[in-house]
Amino acid sequence: MKLIRFGAEGNEKPGVQLENGTKIDVSAFGLDYNETFFGNNGIEKLTNWLKENQDSCSVISEGTRLGVPLTRPSKIVCVGLNYAQHAAEAGMEIPKEPVLFFKSTTALVGPNDEVIIPKNSEKTDWEVELAIVIGKKASYVEEADAFDHIAGYVLHNDVSERAFQIERSGQWCKGKGCDTFAPVGPFIATKDEIKNPNNLNLWLKVNGEMMQNSNTSDFIFNVQHVVSHISQFMTLLPGDIISTGTPFGVGLGLKPPVYLKEGDIMELGIEGLGTSKQVCKNYKA
Amino acid sequence: MKLIRFGAEGNEKPGVQLENGTKIDVSAFGLDYNETFFGNNGIEKLTNWLKENQDSCSVISEGTRLGVPLTRPSKIVCVGLNYAQHAAEAGMEIPKEPVLFFKSTTALVGPNDEVIIPKNSEKTDWEVELAIVIGKKASYVEEADAFDHIAGYVLHNDVSERAFQIERSGQWCKGKGCDTFAPVGPFIATKDEIKNPNNLNLWLKVNGEMMQNSNTSDFIFNVQHVVSHISQFMTLLPGDIISTGTPFGVGLGLKPPVYLKEGDIMELGIEGLGTSKQVCKNYKA
Repeated sequence: MKLIRFGAEGNEKPGVQLENGTKIDVSAFGLDYNETFFGNNGIEKLTNWLKENQDSCSVISEGTRLGVPLTRPSKIVCVGLNYAQHAAEAGMEIPKEPVLFFKSTTALVGPNDEVIIPKNSEKTDWEVELAIVIGKKASYVEEADAFDHIAGYVLHNDVSERAFQIERSGQWCKGKGCDTFAPVGPFIATKDEIKNPNNLNLWLKVNGEMMQNSNTSDFIFNVQHVVSHISQFMTLLPGDIISTGTPFGVGLGLKPPVYLKEGDIMELGIEGLGTSKQVCKNYKA
Repeated sequence: MKLIRFGAEGNEKPGVQLENGTKIDVSAFGLDYNETFFGNNGIEKLTNWLKENQDSCSVISEGTRLGVPLTRPSKIVCVGLNYAQHAAEAGMEIPKEPVLFFKSTTALVGPNDEVIIPKNSEKTDWEVELAIVIGKKASYVEEADAFDHIAGYVLHNDVSERAFQIERSGQWCKGKGCDTFAPVGPFIATKDEIKNPNNLNLWLKVNGEMMQNSNTSDFIFNVQHVVSHISQFMTLLPGDIISTGTPFGVGLGLKPPVYLKEGDIMELGIEGLGTSKQVCKNYKA
Protein backbone atom coordinates (compact mmCIF):
# COMPACT_ATOMS: atom_id res chain seq x y z
CA MET A 1 0.00 0.00 0.00
CA LYS A 2 1.10 3.56 -0.72
CA LEU A 3 0.30 6.08 2.00
CA ILE A 4 0.00 9.74 1.06
CA ARG A 5 -1.15 12.92 2.74
CA PHE A 6 -2.69 15.72 0.75
CA GLY A 7 -4.05 19.25 1.06
CA ALA A 8 -2.76 22.62 2.17
CA GLU A 9 0.29 22.78 4.47
CA GLY A 10 -0.75 22.21 8.05
CA ASN A 11 -4.15 20.83 7.04
CA GLU A 12 -3.16 17.61 5.32
CA LYS A 13 -5.49 14.61 5.29
CA PRO A 14 -4.48 10.97 4.92
CA GLY A 15 -4.93 9.25 1.60
CA VAL A 16 -3.92 6.16 -0.33
CA GLN A 17 -2.48 5.90 -3.82
CA LEU A 18 -4.00 2.85 -5.52
CA GLU A 19 -2.22 0.44 -7.86
CA ASN A 20 -3.62 2.28 -10.89
CA GLY A 21 -2.26 5.61 -9.60
CA THR A 22 -5.63 6.97 -8.44
CA LYS A 23 -5.36 8.77 -5.13
CA ILE A 24 -8.22 8.48 -2.64
CA ASP A 25 -9.13 10.29 0.56
CA VAL A 26 -9.15 7.91 3.55
CA SER A 27 -9.74 10.47 6.29
CA ALA A 28 -12.99 8.62 7.10
CA PHE A 29 -10.77 5.80 8.46
CA GLY A 30 -10.32 8.14 11.41
CA LEU A 31 -6.57 8.09 12.00
CA ASP A 32 -3.84 10.24 10.51
CA TYR A 33 -0.47 8.57 9.83
CA ASN A 34 1.02 9.19 13.25
CA GLU A 35 2.70 7.31 16.09
CA THR A 36 -0.61 5.71 17.13
CA PHE A 37 -1.34 4.60 13.57
CA PHE A 38 2.05 2.97 12.95
CA GLY A 39 2.31 1.56 16.46
CA ASN A 40 -1.09 -0.12 16.51
CA ASN A 41 -1.21 -2.11 13.29
CA GLY A 42 -2.69 0.86 11.45
CA ILE A 43 -1.50 -0.41 8.08
CA GLU A 44 -3.26 -3.74 8.55
CA LYS A 45 -6.41 -2.07 9.91
CA LEU A 46 -6.49 0.42 7.04
CA THR A 47 -6.05 -2.42 4.53
CA ASN A 48 -9.04 -4.21 6.02
CA TRP A 49 -11.08 -1.01 6.25
CA LEU A 50 -10.42 -0.33 2.54
CA LYS A 51 -11.87 -3.71 1.56
CA GLU A 52 -15.24 -2.49 2.84
CA ASN A 53 -14.96 1.22 2.24
CA GLN A 54 -12.73 1.92 -0.75
CA ASP A 55 -15.62 2.57 -3.12
CA SER A 56 -17.04 5.29 -0.90
CA CYS A 57 -13.72 7.17 -0.61
CA SER A 58 -13.58 10.31 -2.73
CA VAL A 59 -10.93 10.60 -5.41
CA ILE A 60 -8.32 13.33 -4.90
CA SER A 61 -8.16 15.61 -7.90
CA GLU A 62 -5.00 15.83 -9.99
CA GLY A 63 -2.79 18.71 -8.99
CA THR A 64 -3.69 18.55 -5.31
CA ARG A 65 -0.63 19.30 -3.17
CA LEU A 66 1.00 16.31 -1.51
CA GLY A 67 2.25 16.79 2.04
CA VAL A 68 4.75 14.86 4.11
CA PRO A 69 3.18 11.36 4.11
CA LEU A 70 3.17 11.11 7.91
CA THR A 71 2.69 13.48 10.84
CA ARG A 72 5.61 15.03 12.72
CA PRO A 73 7.81 12.19 14.01
CA SER A 74 9.62 12.29 17.35
CA LYS A 75 12.87 12.36 15.39
CA ILE A 76 14.65 12.04 12.06
CA VAL A 77 17.86 10.08 12.50
CA CYS A 78 20.25 10.22 9.55
CA VAL A 79 23.25 8.16 8.59
CA GLY A 80 26.22 10.05 7.20
CA LEU A 81 28.77 8.72 4.73
CA ASN A 82 26.97 5.42 4.11
CA TYR A 83 28.22 4.98 0.53
CA ALA A 84 31.96 4.55 0.07
CA GLN A 85 32.25 6.77 -3.01
CA HIS A 86 30.35 9.60 -1.28
CA ALA A 87 32.64 9.46 1.75
CA ALA A 88 35.57 9.88 -0.62
CA GLU A 89 34.05 12.88 -2.44
CA ALA A 90 33.27 14.52 0.92
CA GLY A 91 36.94 14.06 1.82
CA MET A 92 36.06 11.85 4.77
CA GLU A 93 37.21 8.39 5.78
CA ILE A 94 34.95 5.36 5.49
CA PRO A 95 33.46 5.12 8.98
CA LYS A 96 33.95 2.04 11.14
CA GLU A 97 30.32 2.19 12.24
CA PRO A 98 27.37 4.30 11.08
CA VAL A 99 27.83 8.05 11.60
CA LEU A 100 24.55 9.36 13.00
CA PHE A 101 23.07 12.82 13.15
CA PHE A 102 19.63 14.28 13.72
CA LYS A 103 17.69 16.41 11.30
CA SER A 104 15.20 18.86 12.78
CA THR A 105 11.59 17.79 12.27
CA THR A 106 10.80 21.43 11.44
CA ALA A 107 12.73 20.81 8.20
CA LEU A 108 10.00 18.53 6.83
CA VAL A 109 8.08 19.59 3.72
CA GLY A 110 6.01 17.88 1.06
CA PRO A 111 7.74 16.13 -1.85
CA ASN A 112 7.07 18.89 -4.38
CA ASP A 113 7.23 21.94 -2.14
CA GLU A 114 9.80 24.67 -2.63
CA VAL A 115 13.20 24.35 -1.01
CA ILE A 116 14.17 27.64 0.59
CA ILE A 117 17.84 28.57 0.37
CA PRO A 118 18.48 30.07 3.83
CA LYS A 119 19.62 33.62 4.46
CA ASN A 120 23.42 33.88 4.14
CA SER A 121 23.65 30.47 2.49
CA GLU A 122 26.13 29.96 -0.32
CA LYS A 123 26.48 26.18 -0.24
CA THR A 124 23.03 24.56 -0.33
CA ASP A 125 23.37 21.03 -1.69
CA TRP A 126 21.24 17.99 -2.61
CA GLU A 127 21.25 14.39 -1.28
CA VAL A 128 18.84 11.72 -2.52
CA GLU A 129 18.26 9.15 0.22
CA LEU A 130 16.23 6.07 1.04
CA ALA A 131 14.36 6.70 4.28
CA ILE A 132 12.87 4.10 6.59
CA VAL A 133 9.65 4.63 8.57
CA ILE A 134 9.58 2.81 11.90
CA GLY A 135 6.51 0.67 12.56
CA LYS A 136 7.19 -0.71 16.01
CA LYS A 137 9.10 0.63 19.01
CA ALA A 138 12.76 -0.38 18.65
CA SER A 139 15.25 -0.58 21.51
CA TYR A 140 18.30 -2.88 21.40
CA VAL A 141 16.99 -4.66 18.31
CA GLU A 142 19.09 -7.40 16.69
CA GLU A 143 19.79 -7.16 12.96
CA ALA A 144 17.81 -10.36 12.42
CA ASP A 145 14.71 -8.72 13.89
CA ALA A 146 15.14 -5.28 12.34
CA PHE A 147 12.55 -5.72 9.58
CA ASP A 148 9.87 -6.44 12.22
CA HIS A 149 10.29 -2.82 13.32
CA ILE A 150 9.93 -1.24 9.87
CA ALA A 151 6.59 0.04 8.54
CA GLY A 152 7.81 1.10 5.11
CA TYR A 153 10.08 3.24 2.99
CA VAL A 154 9.99 6.73 1.55
CA LEU A 155 12.01 9.00 -0.73
CA HIS A 156 13.92 11.81 1.05
CA ASN A 157 16.06 14.70 -0.17
CA ASP A 158 18.48 15.39 2.71
CA VAL A 159 19.13 18.99 1.67
CA SER A 160 22.30 20.29 3.33
CA GLU A 161 24.05 23.63 3.66
CA ARG A 162 27.73 22.68 3.55
CA ALA A 163 29.14 25.88 5.07
CA PHE A 164 26.63 25.70 7.94
CA GLN A 165 27.32 21.96 8.31
CA ILE A 166 31.09 21.95 8.22
CA GLU A 167 32.48 25.45 8.72
CA ARG A 168 30.37 26.73 11.63
CA SER A 169 31.83 25.43 14.91
CA GLY A 170 31.36 21.69 14.74
CA GLN A 171 28.41 19.28 14.63
CA TRP A 172 26.37 19.03 11.46
CA CYS A 173 22.96 20.11 12.68
CA LYS A 174 23.27 23.77 11.61
CA GLY A 175 23.42 22.69 7.98
CA LYS A 176 20.92 19.86 8.14
CA GLY A 177 17.93 21.22 10.03
CA CYS A 178 17.04 24.36 8.08
CA ASP A 179 13.37 24.84 7.20
CA THR A 180 12.33 22.95 4.02
CA PHE A 181 15.55 20.88 4.07
CA ALA A 182 13.65 17.57 4.31
CA PRO A 183 11.30 17.05 1.37
CA VAL A 184 9.77 13.61 2.03
CA GLY A 185 7.46 11.60 -0.23
CA PRO A 186 5.50 11.30 -2.53
CA PHE A 187 4.31 8.25 -0.57
CA ILE A 188 5.31 5.72 2.05
CA ALA A 189 5.48 2.31 0.40
CA THR A 190 4.60 -0.25 3.03
CA LYS A 191 7.29 -2.86 3.66
CA ASP A 192 5.54 -5.58 1.61
CA GLU A 193 5.94 -3.45 -1.55
CA ILE A 194 9.75 -3.35 -1.42
CA LYS A 195 11.28 -6.80 -1.82
CA ASN A 196 14.82 -5.73 -0.99
CA PRO A 197 15.54 -2.21 0.26
CA ASN A 198 19.24 -2.97 -0.05
CA ASN A 199 18.99 -3.17 -3.83
CA LEU A 200 17.14 -0.14 -5.17
CA ASN A 201 18.22 2.30 -7.84
CA LEU A 202 18.18 5.92 -6.75
CA TRP A 203 18.96 9.09 -8.65
CA LEU A 204 18.81 12.86 -8.54
CA LYS A 205 18.88 15.43 -11.34
CA VAL A 206 19.51 19.16 -11.10
CA ASN A 207 18.00 21.18 -13.96
CA GLY A 208 17.62 17.96 -15.94
CA GLU A 209 21.21 16.82 -15.54
CA MET A 210 21.82 13.53 -13.76
CA MET A 211 23.99 14.22 -10.69
CA GLN A 212 23.46 11.13 -8.52
CA ASN A 213 22.74 7.71 -9.97
CA SER A 214 23.47 4.75 -7.78
CA ASN A 215 21.96 1.77 -6.00
CA THR A 216 21.42 1.03 -2.32
CA SER A 217 23.43 -2.17 -2.85
CA ASP A 218 26.44 0.16 -2.43
CA PHE A 219 25.51 0.80 1.21
CA ILE A 220 28.38 0.42 3.65
CA PHE A 221 25.76 -0.40 6.33
CA ASN A 222 22.52 -1.94 5.12
CA VAL A 223 18.98 -1.21 6.31
CA GLN A 224 18.84 -3.90 8.99
CA HIS A 225 22.28 -2.95 10.34
CA VAL A 226 21.32 0.72 10.55
CA VAL A 227 18.06 0.08 12.43
CA SER A 228 19.80 -2.27 14.85
CA HIS A 229 22.70 0.12 15.37
CA ILE A 230 20.58 3.21 16.10
CA SER A 231 18.45 1.20 18.52
CA GLN A 232 21.57 0.57 20.65
CA PHE A 233 21.68 4.29 21.43
CA MET A 234 18.05 5.38 21.65
CA THR A 235 14.50 4.10 21.36
CA LEU A 236 12.95 4.49 17.94
CA LEU A 237 9.22 5.19 18.04
CA PRO A 238 6.57 4.23 15.48
CA GLY A 239 6.56 6.91 12.81
CA ASP A 240 10.20 7.90 13.36
CA ILE A 241 12.22 8.42 10.19
CA ILE A 242 15.67 7.02 9.52
CA SER A 243 17.47 8.34 6.46
CA THR A 244 20.13 5.97 5.22
CA GLY A 245 22.69 8.27 3.60
CA THR A 246 23.38 9.53 0.11
CA PRO A 247 25.46 8.14 -2.75
CA PHE A 248 28.19 9.81 -4.80
CA GLY A 249 27.36 12.92 -6.80
CA VAL A 250 26.52 15.79 -4.44
CA GLY A 251 27.49 19.36 -5.27
CA LEU A 252 30.21 19.41 -2.62
CA GLY A 253 32.05 16.62 -4.44
CA LEU A 254 32.25 18.30 -7.85
CA LYS A 255 35.44 20.02 -8.95
CA PRO A 256 34.82 22.86 -8.52
CA PRO A 257 31.85 22.38 -6.16
CA VAL A 258 28.43 23.43 -7.45
CA TYR A 259 25.64 24.61 -5.18
CA LEU A 260 21.96 25.37 -5.59
CA LYS A 261 20.67 28.81 -6.54
CA GLU A 262 17.24 30.34 -6.93
CA GLY A 263 15.28 28.72 -9.75
CA ASP A 264 17.24 25.47 -9.76
CA ILE A 265 15.06 22.36 -10.03
CA MET A 266 15.83 19.11 -8.22
CA GLU A 267 14.13 15.93 -9.40
CA LEU A 268 14.80 12.67 -7.62
CA GLY A 269 13.50 9.16 -7.34
CA ILE A 270 13.96 5.69 -5.97
CA GLU A 271 12.81 2.45 -7.58
CA GLY A 272 9.37 1.62 -6.15
CA LEU A 273 9.14 4.87 -4.17
CA GLY A 274 8.15 7.34 -6.87
CA THR A 275 9.68 10.70 -7.66
CA SER A 276 9.67 14.21 -6.23
CA LYS A 277 10.57 17.64 -7.56
CA GLN A 278 11.60 20.79 -5.72
CA VAL A 279 12.25 24.28 -7.04
CA CYS A 280 14.79 26.35 -5.08
CA LYS A 281 13.86 29.80 -3.84
CA ASN A 282 15.91 32.33 -1.90
CA TYR A 283 14.68 33.12 1.60
CA LYS A 284 12.51 36.22 1.78
CA ALA A 285 11.28 37.64 5.08
CA MET B 1 4.04 31.05 37.59
CA LYS B 2 5.52 27.58 37.96
CA LEU B 3 4.19 24.97 35.52
CA ILE B 4 4.39 21.30 36.48
CA ARG B 5 3.05 18.04 35.12
CA PHE B 6 2.27 15.16 37.44
CA GLY B 7 1.10 11.55 37.46
CA ALA B 8 2.26 8.26 35.99
CA GLU B 9 4.60 8.28 32.99
CA GLY B 10 2.63 8.78 29.80
CA ASN B 11 -0.47 9.92 31.69
CA GLU B 12 0.73 13.21 33.13
CA LYS B 13 -1.69 16.06 33.80
CA PRO B 14 -0.86 19.76 33.92
CA GLY B 15 -0.52 21.47 37.28
CA VAL B 16 0.76 24.63 38.88
CA GLN B 17 3.05 25.04 41.87
CA LEU B 18 1.84 27.99 43.94
CA GLU B 19 4.01 30.52 45.75
CA ASN B 20 3.60 28.63 49.03
CA GLY B 21 4.77 25.39 47.41
CA THR B 22 1.32 23.80 47.15
CA LYS B 23 0.81 21.98 43.87
CA ILE B 24 -2.61 22.08 42.23
CA ASP B 25 -4.22 20.18 39.36
CA VAL B 26 -5.18 22.53 36.51
CA SER B 27 -6.32 19.93 34.01
CA ALA B 28 -9.76 21.55 34.09
CA PHE B 29 -8.19 24.48 32.24
CA GLY B 30 -8.37 22.17 29.24
CA LEU B 31 -4.93 22.44 27.69
CA ASP B 32 -1.78 20.48 28.37
CA TYR B 33 1.55 22.36 28.15
CA ASN B 34 2.11 21.81 24.44
CA GLU B 35 2.86 23.79 21.28
CA THR B 36 -0.69 25.16 21.17
CA PHE B 37 -0.52 26.26 24.81
CA PHE B 38 2.79 28.09 24.52
CA GLY B 39 2.02 29.49 21.08
CA ASN B 40 -1.37 30.96 21.96
CA ASN B 41 -0.76 32.95 25.13
CA GLY B 42 -1.52 29.92 27.24
CA ILE B 43 0.44 31.28 30.20
CA GLU B 44 -1.59 34.49 30.23
CA LYS B 45 -4.87 32.62 29.75
CA LEU B 46 -4.03 30.16 32.52
CA THR B 47 -3.11 33.04 34.83
CA ASN B 48 -6.50 34.62 34.22
CA TRP B 49 -8.31 31.29 34.51
CA LEU B 50 -6.67 30.69 37.89
CA LYS B 51 -8.01 33.98 39.25
CA GLU B 52 -11.51 32.54 38.91
CA ASN B 53 -10.86 28.84 39.38
CA GLN B 54 -7.88 28.31 41.66
CA ASP B 55 -9.99 27.49 44.71
CA SER B 56 -11.78 24.67 42.91
CA CYS B 57 -8.52 23.01 41.74
CA SER B 58 -7.63 19.91 43.71
CA VAL B 59 -4.35 19.80 45.59
CA ILE B 60 -1.79 17.25 44.38
CA SER B 61 -0.70 14.99 47.22
CA GLU B 62 2.91 14.99 48.41
CA GLY B 63 4.97 12.25 46.81
CA THR B 64 3.10 12.32 43.50
CA ARG B 65 5.51 11.74 40.63
CA LEU B 66 6.46 14.82 38.62
CA GLY B 67 6.76 14.40 34.85
CA VAL B 68 8.48 16.48 32.23
CA PRO B 69 6.75 19.87 32.67
CA LEU B 70 5.73 20.09 29.01
CA THR B 71 4.64 17.67 26.28
CA ARG B 72 7.05 16.30 23.69
CA PRO B 73 8.64 19.26 21.89
CA SER B 74 9.51 19.25 18.20
CA LYS B 75 13.15 19.41 19.23
CA ILE B 76 15.72 19.87 21.97
CA VAL B 77 18.58 22.04 20.72
CA CYS B 78 21.65 22.07 22.92
CA VAL B 79 24.66 24.33 23.08
CA GLY B 80 28.00 22.65 23.60
CA LEU B 81 31.01 24.16 25.33
CA ASN B 82 29.25 27.35 26.42
CA TYR B 83 31.36 27.89 29.55
CA ALA B 84 35.05 28.56 29.01
CA GLN B 85 36.29 26.40 31.88
CA HIS B 86 34.18 23.44 30.68
CA ALA B 87 35.56 23.70 27.15
CA ALA B 88 39.05 23.49 28.67
CA GLU B 89 38.25 20.42 30.79
CA ALA B 90 36.73 18.70 27.74
CA GLY B 91 39.99 19.38 25.91
CA MET B 92 38.21 21.51 23.31
CA GLU B 93 38.84 25.05 22.07
CA ILE B 94 36.54 27.91 22.97
CA PRO B 95 34.18 28.03 20.02
CA LYS B 96 33.88 31.13 17.84
CA GLU B 97 30.11 30.73 17.74
CA PRO B 98 27.71 28.43 19.62
CA VAL B 99 28.27 24.73 18.95
CA LEU B 100 24.82 23.19 18.46
CA PHE B 101 23.59 19.63 18.68
CA PHE B 102 20.22 17.95 19.02
CA LYS B 103 19.13 15.72 21.86
CA SER B 104 16.50 13.09 21.06
CA THR B 105 13.09 13.93 22.53
CA THR B 106 12.79 10.26 23.51
CA ALA B 107 15.46 11.01 26.13
CA LEU B 108 13.05 13.15 28.19
CA VAL B 109 12.09 11.98 31.68
CA GLY B 110 10.70 13.56 34.81
CA PRO B 111 13.01 15.45 37.17
CA ASN B 112 13.22 12.68 39.75
CA ASP B 113 12.97 9.62 37.53
CA GLU B 114 15.76 7.07 37.30
CA VAL B 115 18.58 7.61 34.83
CA ILE B 116 19.30 4.37 33.01
CA ILE B 117 22.95 3.68 32.23
CA PRO B 118 22.76 2.20 28.72
CA LYS B 119 23.92 -1.28 27.79
CA ASN B 120 27.68 -1.28 27.09
CA SER B 121 28.11 2.16 28.65
CA GLU B 122 31.20 2.86 30.70
CA LYS B 123 31.27 6.65 30.54
CA THR B 124 27.88 8.03 31.57
CA ASP B 125 28.34 11.58 32.83
CA TRP B 126 26.33 14.49 34.30
CA GLU B 127 25.75 18.06 33.06
CA VAL B 128 23.59 20.58 34.92
CA GLU B 129 22.14 23.09 32.45
CA LEU B 130 19.78 26.02 32.24
CA ALA B 131 17.16 25.23 29.59
CA ILE B 132 14.95 27.73 27.79
CA VAL B 133 11.36 26.98 26.73
CA ILE B 134 10.30 28.76 23.55
CA GLY B 135 7.03 30.70 23.75
CA LYS B 136 6.68 32.09 20.25
CA LYS B 137 7.81 30.84 16.84
CA ALA B 138 11.36 32.08 16.23
CA SER B 139 12.99 32.43 12.82
CA TYR B 140 15.80 34.92 12.14
CA VAL B 141 15.24 36.64 15.46
CA GLU B 142 17.51 39.52 16.50
CA GLU B 143 19.19 39.37 19.91
CA ALA B 144 17.23 42.45 20.97
CA ASP B 145 13.96 40.58 20.36
CA ALA B 146 15.00 37.18 21.72
CA PHE B 147 13.21 37.48 25.07
CA ASP B 148 9.89 38.00 23.24
CA HIS B 149 10.24 34.41 22.05
CA ILE B 150 10.91 32.84 25.46
CA ALA B 151 8.13 31.35 27.61
CA GLY B 152 10.26 30.39 30.57
CA TYR B 153 13.16 28.44 32.01
CA VAL B 154 13.68 24.95 33.39
CA LEU B 155 16.38 22.84 35.02
CA HIS B 156 17.92 20.14 32.78
CA ASN B 157 20.49 17.41 33.36
CA ASP B 158 22.08 16.85 29.94
CA VAL B 159 23.22 13.32 30.73
CA SER B 160 25.91 12.21 28.28
CA GLU B 161 27.75 8.99 27.47
CA ARG B 162 31.26 10.17 26.61
CA ALA B 163 32.42 7.07 24.74
CA PHE B 164 29.22 7.06 22.65
CA GLN B 165 29.54 10.83 22.14
CA ILE B 166 33.20 11.10 21.23
CA GLU B 167 34.63 7.69 20.36
CA ARG B 168 31.92 6.26 18.09
CA SER B 169 32.36 7.63 14.55
CA GLY B 170 31.71 11.33 14.86
CA GLN B 171 28.75 13.54 15.79
CA TRP B 172 27.62 13.67 19.38
CA CYS B 173 24.08 12.36 19.09
CA LYS B 174 24.90 8.74 20.01
CA GLY B 175 25.94 9.84 23.47
CA LYS B 176 23.30 12.52 24.01
CA GLY B 177 20.01 10.94 22.97
CA CYS B 178 19.88 7.76 25.07
CA ASP B 179 16.60 7.04 26.87
CA THR B 180 16.33 8.90 30.24
CA PHE B 181 19.27 11.17 29.35
CA ALA B 182 17.17 14.35 29.65
CA PRO B 183 15.64 14.76 33.12
CA VAL B 184 13.77 18.07 32.91
CA GLY B 185 12.05 19.93 35.73
CA PRO B 186 10.75 20.14 38.47
CA PHE B 187 8.89 23.09 36.91
CA ILE B 188 8.99 25.66 34.15
CA ALA B 189 9.37 29.08 35.73
CA THR B 190 7.67 31.56 33.45
CA LYS B 191 9.90 34.32 32.16
CA ASP B 192 8.59 36.94 34.62
CA GLU B 193 9.95 34.87 37.54
CA ILE B 194 13.57 35.01 36.40
CA LYS B 195 14.94 38.54 36.42
CA ASN B 196 18.20 37.73 34.67
CA PRO B 197 18.78 34.25 33.23
CA ASN B 198 22.38 35.25 32.57
CA ASN B 199 23.12 35.48 36.27
CA LEU B 200 21.90 32.34 38.02
CA ASN B 201 23.79 30.00 40.29
CA LEU B 202 23.69 26.37 39.21
CA TRP B 203 25.16 23.27 40.81
CA LEU B 204 25.22 19.49 40.70
CA LYS B 205 26.20 16.96 43.37
CA VAL B 206 27.00 13.28 42.94
CA ASN B 207 26.43 11.19 46.07
CA GLY B 208 26.36 14.40 48.11
CA GLU B 209 29.64 15.75 46.80
CA MET B 210 29.56 19.08 44.94
CA MET B 211 30.86 18.51 41.40
CA GLN B 212 29.58 21.52 39.47
CA ASN B 213 29.05 24.90 41.10
CA SER B 214 28.98 27.89 38.83
CA ASN B 215 26.86 30.74 37.53
CA THR B 216 25.34 31.42 34.13
CA SER B 217 27.19 34.73 34.14
CA ASP B 218 30.12 32.62 32.93
CA PHE B 219 28.30 31.88 29.66
CA ILE B 220 30.40 32.43 26.55
CA PHE B 221 27.12 33.07 24.66
CA ASN B 222 24.22 34.39 26.70
CA VAL B 223 20.56 33.42 26.49
CA GLN B 224 19.54 36.07 23.96
CA HIS B 225 22.54 35.33 21.75
CA VAL B 226 21.81 31.61 21.76
CA VAL B 227 18.13 32.02 20.82
CA SER B 228 19.00 34.46 18.05
CA HIS B 229 21.82 32.27 16.76
CA ILE B 230 19.79 29.05 16.58
CA SER B 231 16.97 30.87 14.83
CA GLN B 232 19.36 31.69 11.95
CA PHE B 233 19.51 27.99 11.13
CA MET B 234 16.03 26.64 11.87
CA THR B 235 12.62 27.71 13.10
CA LEU B 236 12.06 27.24 16.82
CA LEU B 237 8.49 26.31 17.70
CA PRO B 238 6.55 27.12 20.87
CA GLY B 239 7.42 24.46 23.44
CA ASP B 240 10.83 23.70 21.94
CA ILE B 241 13.64 23.34 24.45
CA ILE B 242 17.06 24.97 24.19
CA SER B 243 19.68 23.81 26.65
CA THR B 244 22.42 26.34 27.16
CA GLY B 245 25.45 24.22 28.03
CA THR B 246 27.12 23.04 31.19
CA PRO B 247 29.78 24.60 33.42
CA PHE B 248 33.06 23.12 34.65
CA GLY B 249 32.98 19.98 36.76
CA VAL B 250 31.75 17.05 34.70
CA GLY B 251 33.15 13.54 35.20
CA LEU B 252 35.06 13.65 31.93
CA GLY B 253 37.12 16.56 33.21
CA LEU B 254 38.33 14.94 36.43
CA LYS B 255 41.81 13.46 36.63
CA PRO B 256 41.28 10.56 36.35
CA PRO B 257 37.78 10.84 34.87
CA VAL B 258 34.88 9.57 37.02
CA TYR B 259 31.68 8.19 35.54
CA LEU B 260 28.29 7.19 36.91
CA LYS B 261 27.53 3.69 38.15
CA GLU B 262 24.43 1.95 39.42
CA GLY B 263 23.18 3.47 42.65
CA ASP B 264 24.84 6.84 42.19
CA ILE B 265 22.63 9.79 43.05
CA MET B 266 22.68 13.05 41.15
CA GLU B 267 21.16 16.14 42.75
CA LEU B 268 21.10 19.41 40.89
CA GLY B 269 19.57 22.83 41.01
CA ILE B 270 19.42 26.31 39.58
CA GLU B 271 18.54 29.48 41.47
CA GLY B 272 14.81 30.05 41.00
CA LEU B 273 14.26 26.80 39.14
CA GLY B 274 14.18 24.29 41.98
CA THR B 275 16.08 21.04 42.31
CA SER B 276 15.91 17.54 40.90
CA LYS B 277 17.36 14.18 41.90
CA GLN B 278 18.05 11.09 39.83
CA VAL B 279 19.24 7.66 40.90
CA CYS B 280 21.32 5.75 38.32
CA LYS B 281 20.32 2.23 37.33
CA ASN B 282 21.95 -0.16 34.91
CA TYR B 283 19.90 -1.08 31.86
CA LYS B 284 17.96 -4.31 32.24
CA ALA B 285 16.00 -5.85 29.36
